[in-house]
Amino acid sequence: MRRGFEHELAEIQDLLTEMAARAGSAMNTATQAMLNADLQAAQAVIAGDDVLDDLTGRIERACYDTVARQQPVARDLRTVVSAMQISSSLERMGDLADHVAKLTSMRHPDKCIPEDVRPMFAQMGTVADQMATRTAALLGTPDLAGASAILAMDDQMDQLHRDLFTAVLAPTWTHGVEAAIDTTLMSRYYERYADHAVAVVRRVIQLVTGDPFPLTATWPPTAERDRPAGG
Amino acid sequence: MRRGFEHELAEIQDLLTEMAARAGSAMNTATQAMLNADLQAAQAVIAGDDVLDDLTGRIERACYDTVARQQPVARDLRTVVSAMQISSSLERMGDLADHVAKLTSMRHPDKCIPEDVRPMFAQMGTVADQMATRTAALLGTPDLAGASAILAMDDQMDQLHRDLFTAVLAPTWTHGVEAAIDTTLMSRYYERYADHAVAVVRRVIQLVTGDPFPLTATWPPTAERDRPAGG
Repeated sequence: MRRGFEHELAEIQDLLTEMAARAGSAMNTATQAMLNADLQAAQAVIAGDDVLDDLTGRIERACYDTVARQQPVARDLRTVVSAMQISSSLERMGDLADHVAKLTSMRHPDKCIPEDVRPMFAQMGTVADQMATRTAALLGTPDLAGASAILAMDDQMDQLHRDLFTAVLAPTWTHGVEAAIDTTLMSRYYERYADHAVAVVRRVIQLVTGDPFPLTATWPPTAERDRPAGG
Repeated sequence: MRRGFEHELAEIQDLLTEMAARAGSAMNTATQAMLNADLQAAQAVIAGDDVLDDLTGRIERACYDTVARQQPVARDLRTVVSAMQISSSLERMGDLADHVAKLTSMRHPDKCIPEDVRPMFAQMGTVADQMATRTAALLGTPDLAGASAILAMDDQMDQLHRDLFTAVLAPTWTHGVEAAIDTTLMSRYYERYADHAVAVVRRVIQLVTGDPFPLTATWPPTAERDRPAGG
């Protein structure tokens, strides 16, 4: 029974790792599409989002089947339920890559962000990429050091998000209202993408530390994460 | 055993209904705070968000305890897991009310939205209120007609969100970039609030219809829900 459970769990874990890798590559392609106003790349991201949605369905089904067959309790049950919650977060990361791609394709053949904020978005793309890669690795081999590294990257993303607000609101901003809004929304998509990676990490920490409810506490102690994007 | 399960489930259901009511009243107060630049109201919403976070923790704990004690299978198990997912969505609705309140308090004593879009936000507040009230009712007494009504309200919210984009991007917009961004973000908070109510409704539909995975299908058949807010 135990071996059956572990076998099924390993399969679910593989699906989660695949989802994280796909959410990462979706955002990478979306970033390239945005930076280069590349319509084909944007369309590839939009078309690929269904795969992530299907994977979420498959994981949810696999989790229910495992619970029905193996009747896990305590920590094992929490692991299975966490897998479903993690897959929701990964699906949402894919949705946000899809948002970046859709906004890009809507503005095509124009670029939807002005040249002077391009380096900041390139950096956001890099941070998003690192977070997704590390998250995929963490789902394969959970460890707290890896988790901490991802949380530190989220702080970088938050800083970039604030920097973009500063740029858009500066008197030197000459690109008008529409570009300001596109820039703000794009920035928020990346920031939320990072937040969902953090949600995954917290679930993993929950499982590694054995503390079933760290989500109600503050871990790690850090500046208020939930300020609105306008701040 | 069955009675024990139903008793525990009823308690969880009460907590969910309480959460929905609180998420509703948080957004109501936040809307009033925003419309009237009422700092005290905004602060009340921000202070109250902890209660919703605590309720999420309590529900999660209660769900795990129920599964451990009652070992539910099949539909019963799905009900318990759905309760956790519903509580995550309700918590997120509370977060979005908190975002509205925080942006309001940041701009105080100024209003953060210009007078000419005020009626649209007043309407968004009304729709959000109705959605939350109906969602709370649905959690008490699940029925498909109530679910459909909430989904129709989400369409209204999406339309208001689009109308606000049109207003901000019109040549008649004279309020500059910062007000445009605040207006866009506020609008997005309401739109996302409605989306989370829809996520709750879909989980309830899942339980009522007995179809465990309607989330991977499109129900109801409606125009693309997931377009980016920039659209």
